[in-house]
Amino acid sequence: MIKVVVLGNGNVATHLTKAFKKAKNVKVTKISSRKIEQLPDANIYIIAVSDDAIAAVSSKIKSKNLVVHTSGSVAMNSLQNHGNKGVFYMLQTFSTNKKVNFSKIPFCLEAQNKTDLHLLETLATSIGKNIYHINSVQRKSLHVAAVFVNNFTNHLYKIGNDICKEHNVPFEILKPLIKETAAKIKTLSPADAQTGPAIRNDQKTIKNHLTLLNHHQQKIYTMLTKSISSLSIKKNNL
Amino acid sequence: MIKVVVLGNGNVATHLTKAFKKAKNVKVTKISSRKIEQLPDANIYIIAVSDDAIAAVSSKIKSKNLVVHTSGSVAMNSLQNHGNKGVFYMLQTFSTNKKVNFSKIPFCLEAQNKTDLHLLETLATSIGKNIYHINSVQRKSLHVAAVFVNNFTNHLYKIGNDICKEHNVPFEILKPLIKETAAKIKTLSPADAQTGPAIRNDQKTIKNHLTLLNHHQQKIYTMLTKSISSLSIKKNNL
Repeated sequence: MIKVVVLGNGNVATHLTKAFKKAKNVKVTKISSRKIEQLPDANIYIIAVSDDAIAAVSSKIKSKNLVVHTSGSVAMNSLQNHGNKGVFYMLQTFSTNKKVNFSKIPFCLEAQNKTDLHLLETLATSIGKNIYHINSVQRKSLHVAAVFVNNFTNHLYKIGNDICKEHNVPFEILKPLIKETAAKIKTLSPADAQTGPAIRNDQKTIKNHLTLLNHHQQKIYTMLTKSISSLSIKKNNL
Repeated sequence: MIKVVVLGNGNVATHLTKAFKKAKNVKVTKISSRKIEQLPDANIYIIAVSDDAIAAVSSKIKSKNLVVHTSGSVAMNSLQNHGNKGVFYMLQTFSTNKKVNFSKIPFCLEAQNKTDLHLLETLATSIGKNIYHINSVQRKSLHVAAVFVNNFTNHLYKIGNDICKEHNVPFEILKPLIKETAAKIKTLSPADAQTGPAIRNDQKTIKNHLTLLNHHQQKIYTMLTKSISSLSIKKNNL
């Protein structure tokens, strides 16, 4: 039996606690980071609070047992507890009202020694399947890559939605394409999956498209088109 | 029974012909656009060739029956046949080796009169379900929106992949996030689904991220971050 305390009130803390409650061999307690003085005994303390609060919250933990945070962009050594440190980072986007399927989520684990890493692995395996050992530098690069494929991609969906609204077309027409674009890279590398006027260097279509966009959209269209074309030029020169 | 001739040799022509062959009440013949002199009689001629070739191919069709093209960015009136004109645009990305599920694909139909539109609807319904009436202006805007949500999104996947490679992290860790990002907008608008440092105006994380990127990646990161932040400022001022 692994005794776990989850510290925090956000989406990650809530979903994680729910999952541990259903797991065999895990006993979980969730407490607010404001009540840190009343910490029960545990094998692992999971700090699931905002990045800025991790150092302060961890500094208040008196236990010598393992303390981990769940952040993609905070180094393991930012933890200020007196015992062992580690990271329990789940690379996924958590929403309040959406059920989380932990069996599909990658767990990126880091610890200061093999015993702790093994303990984190056992804990992750109790709710998930995809376990990776990722150090703090790798995790930071994963986090910035995630900004491109998640935050920025969602912003492109937003621009697509804006264009539809402006021209009185239902955005739902684009949803199967959005789904297929994401599904394609399961089997193709993104470089091989690239299609469209930019990679074909189809200047006529590019010009036509620009006439339909507002100034702000044009700037983004032009920059991303240039970025794609530069790949096509490199390819052709090989 | 609708008699259809599909003109072309590309992915769209191939997948469409395959689907019509399985459909009840459709008799399909596929011929190369180079053999246009030997056109069999048909109710509908579907020109599935590259945008630049549509006008030339259509001008060689002597039949007075309905001629349509399958392009997202070419106006219906670019067709140069002497009979009725229309558009049979399927908004999806077609790959050579990937099976196409036409029941999920949106059919964007346009014609010069109701009889032809009804004929196209009957034909589309023989292989699909999601039928829309979309005029040439709307279709152009859909096509440019599709560039954002498909071509540009795929390019962001490519940049994510590059960052992973550069930092020795498996790209597969990001694939569940990519899938979830696309799935989220089924129930949330892209504006409501936006997360990340840009919408939170989290300058510390943004600065950290920039140090991990090369110059080219930095430029794209900065532009898209600004674009997202400007929305957050608008929201806060409301």
